[in-house]
Amino acid sequence: MYTQAEDYRQRRRRLAQLFPKPVLIESGPMLLRNPSQTFPFRASSHFLYFAGWNHPEVALLLEDGRATLYYDRPDVSGAVWEGPGPDLDELCERYGFDMVLPFEQAPSAIRLNSQAPEALLDAVVAVRLRHDAAARSQLEQAVDMTVRAHFQAMRATRPERREFQILATLLVSVTQEGGATSFTPIVSRRGEILHNPHYDGTLQKGDLLLVDFGAENREGWAGDLTRTFPVRTTFSPRQAEIYELVLRAQKAALAECRPGQEYREVHRAACLTMTRGLVDLGLLRGDPAELVERGAHALFFPHGTGHLLGLDCHDMEDLGDRAGYAPGRRRSDQFGLNFLRLDRPLEDGMAVTVEPGFYWIPQLLENPERTAPFQDCLDPKTVEAYREVRGIRIEDDVLIEEAGSRVLSSALPKELLELEIVVNS
Amino acid sequence: MYTQAEDYRQRRRRLAQLFPKPVLIESGPMLLRNPSQTFPFRASSHFLYFAGWNHPEVALLLEDGRATLYYDRPDVSGAVWEGPGPDLDELCERYGFDMVLPFEQAPSAIRLNSQAPEALLDAVVAVRLRHDAAARSQLEQAVDMTVRAHFQAMRATRPERREFQILATLLVSVTQEGGATSFTPIVSRRGEILHNPHYDGTLQKGDLLLVDFGAENREGWAGDLTRTFPVRTTFSPRQAEIYELVLRAQKAALAECRPGQEYREVHRAACLTMTRGLVDLGLLRGDPAELVERGAHALFFPHGTGHLLGLDCHDMEDLGDRAGYAPGRRRSDQFGLNFLRLDRPLEDGMAVTVEPGFYWIPQLLENPERTAPFQDCLDPKTVEAYREVRGIRIEDDVLIEEAGSRVLSSALPKELLELEIVVNS
Repeated sequence: MYTQAEDYRQRRRRLAQLFPKPVLIESGPMLLRNPSQTFPFRASSHFLYFAGWNHPEVALLLEDGRATLYYDRPDVSGAVWEGPGPDLDELCERYGFDMVLPFEQAPSAIRLNSQAPEALLDAVVAVRLRHDAAARSQLEQAVDMTVRAHFQAMRATRPERREFQILATLLVSVTQEGGATSFTPIVSRRGEILHNPHYDGTLQKGDLLLVDFGAENREGWAGDLTRTFPVRTTFSPRQAEIYELVLRAQKAALAECRPGQEYREVHRAACLTMTRGLVDLGLLRGDPAELVERGAHALFFPHGTGHLLGLDCHDMEDLGDRAGYAPGRRRSDQFGLNFLRLDRPLEDGMAVTVEPGFYWIPQLLENPERTAPFQDCLDPKTVEAYREVRGIRIEDDVLIEEAGSRVLSSALPKELLELEIVVNS
Repeated sequence: MYTQAEDYRQRRRRLAQLFPKPVLIESGPMLLRNPSQTFPFRASSHFLYFAGWNHPEVALLLEDGRATLYYDRPDVSGAVWEGPGPDLDELCERYGFDMVLPFEQAPSAIRLNSQAPEALLDAVVAVRLRHDAAARSQLEQAVDMTVRAHFQAMRATRPERREFQILATLLVSVTQEGGATSFTPIVSRRGEILHNPHYDGTLQKGDLLLVDFGAENREGWAGDLTRTFPVRTTFSPRQAEIYELVLRAQKAALAECRPGQEYREVHRAACLTMTRGLVDLGLLRGDPAELVERGAHALFFPHGTGHLLGLDCHDMEDLGDRAGYAPGRRRSDQFGLNFLRLDRPLEDGMAVTVEPGFYWIPQLLENPERTAPFQDCLDPKTVEAYREVRGIRIEDDVLIEEAGSRVLSSALPKELLELEIVVNS
C-alpha cells in the first residue's frame, strides 16, 4: 500500500498549521562515491515525508496551502543519460502537488534544514514524531521486510561460513523485494564491537552471531532489528544465561512502552533488569538500583536502550537531539547514559526501538581506569568467566499506541522472536 | 592472491623516482548517508593503490624512501563502538609501512589530490596507468567475480520478474564472495536510457534486458561488464540484427586493442562498423566513413567506446581527463565524441573497456533539432521500424599486453561471452 496524495497533503496542512510561513524543502544532491560515480540517490527524509518523490535536486514549496514542486525536466543530454523524466500530471496526482515550476524559479523562502528557525524545526518534529496511519503502515512494511531478511540470515548461518556470506542473504532478501538497507548492517561474531563495520570473520561452532540489520522499504521507511543466535545450534551454558538475561531485560523494557511513560523509564527498566541479573550471576555485587544509579551496568551495557524510528533509522537525528530529547533536557555526562538517544515521554504514534545488550568489552572490563570506581561491586573472577559470551543484543521495533503498544516485529517467525534456548551439554 | 607488501613498496618507489619530494596520501573521511549514518567506508583509490589499507582518516607519508602511516588507535570510547584496531606490527608487515605515528603528527607535505602540483599528478598517472602484475591479478579477480554475477543474473531473468529481483542476484553474488559493486548497477529493460538508475520495471517476454554491472573485489579493484539478452529466450528479428551488429562493432574495436594503437582508433573502428551496419540495414544512407566524420552514428551510439579501468571503474577520473587524455589533447565538441573518455595511445599494462551500443532514444531520433543536420542520410521509416530494439550494449574489459591483449572476461561461460542468437519465428 502506497502513501496516498491525500496523506501528503494532510502532512503539509499539519505543518502549515504549526508554522504558517512559506517553507522550501529540498530533496538534496546526488552524493558522490568518487568524482565520477554517484551513490544511489536517496532524498532527505524531510522531503520524502512531505513530498514523497525520491528524486535529486528538486524542491517543494509550501505556501498558502499550496504545494509547488520545483523541477527541471532533463534537457536532451540529460534525457539521453537519465531518461526523459516523469509525466508531470501523473506526478502531481501521485504526490498531491498543485504545480510544477522550473527549479530556478524556486523562491528564497525559509529552507527546512538543520539551520532552519527553531519554530520550524519544532513544528517538523511535532508532525513527524507521531506517525500517521500511512506512516504506520509503511513502518510495518519495512519491519516485515526486515524480519524476512533476518530469517534468511538465520537459515544461512553455519560453521565455516564467512560473515559476508550471511550479509549477502540479508541484502538479497531486501533487494529482491525492491528495498534496500536502512543503515550499514552489523553481521559479526564479535558482537562486543558495537558498530563493527567488518564482515571478514569466519563463523565457528560455539560462536554467537549478532545481526543488527534494517530494511529500507520502497518509500524510504526504516526497520531495525537485532538478533543474536548460536552458530548452529546450541548455546553454551554461559551464553544461555546471558541471552536469557538480555531477553528478560528487553521484555521489562517493552513492558514500559506505553503512551505517557518516559522513555528514560524504559531504559531504566532494561538497566535494572540487566543489573539484577548480573548480581544474581555474581558479576556484580550490591543493590541493583544503586548500581544502576552509579552506572556500574554500563561496563556491560554501555549504550542507550533505543531511539526513534521512522524514515531514518535514527529518526530526525539530522536535527541533533531536538526530536529525541524533550525541550529543556540534555544528555547526561555519565558513561552509558550519555549514549541514550531518547529522553521524552512516549506518545501515541511514536515508533521506538528497544535493544538492550550485554558486551564483554576488553577496553572497559580490563581497563583499570574504568573498573576502579567499581572495585567494591565487581567480581573480576566471575566477570572473566563470561568473556566467551562476547556480545548479545536483542532489538525490536515498537509502535506506541493508545490501544496498546505493538511490537512491529510480532509477525516474526517464532524461531526469531524467541529463540529456543538449547544449551550444549 | 593478495597484493603483497613488496608490491606496495615498489609502487611507492616508482612514484618517488618520478616525484622525489615528500607526498602525503590521505584515505579520506567516512561519507555520511545522513547526519547519523555513514556509508560503508571505501578509501580513495590513490590511497588503496599506494597504501592498501581500507581505513578512514589515515594518511601515508612517502619521504626519502620511507612509508609512514599516520593513524590513531581508537580511544576507549572509539574501541567500544568500532573495535580496538589492528596490531600495528602486523599492519606494517602486511602493507610494507616502515612506521606508524599519531595522525596529528602528519606533516604538511604536498597532498595527493586533484589540486596537487601537475608534476605529482603526472607521476601518479604514469605509475597507475600501466598495471603491475599484482594489479593485473586483482583486475582478473574483479572481472571473474563480475562474470559470475552476470551469469546468476541471466539465469534469474524471466518474464514477470522485476528488475530489482535481477539486481538482487547480482548483489548477492558479489557480496557472498566478499566483494561489492564498483558503480551503481544498470539493470533495465529500457537500455536506451544510458545511466538508468531505476529498477522498477517488470520484465516482459520480448524485452531485452541490459545489465551493466561491475564487481569491486576485496582490495577495491573494479570489473565492468555489460550484456544485453532476451527475456527468455529468443530475439525478435530486428533485435537479432542489431545485436549482431553491436557484437561485430565490439569485435572490430577489440581487434584494435594493442600496444601503440590510439584508443581513438578503437572507438573509430566501433563507430565505423556500427555505421556500415546501419547503412546495410537501411537506417542510414551514404558513405560510412563520411557519416562517422559528421557524427551521424551518434544519433544511435552517443557515447564513447570505453574508458580506463583500475581501482576505479572510470580509473583516475578524479583527476579529470589527465589520465584519459594524452598531454595536449582535449575533448571534442562534437556530440558523441564529447563523451569519449579516453584518447591516448594504448600501452602494455593498461586496462580499458570496449562497450559499443545501439540505442533508440526518442529525445534524439524524434527531435527535429537533432535530426535536421542528417536529413540527407537518415531513413525515418526504417529507423522507426527498429524502435522496439530500445538499447543494446556489449562491454568487455581488456588488458593491453605486448604478448597479445587479453579480454579479461574470456573466462565467461560461453552463454555470456557470445549469446546464442535464437530468433523467434
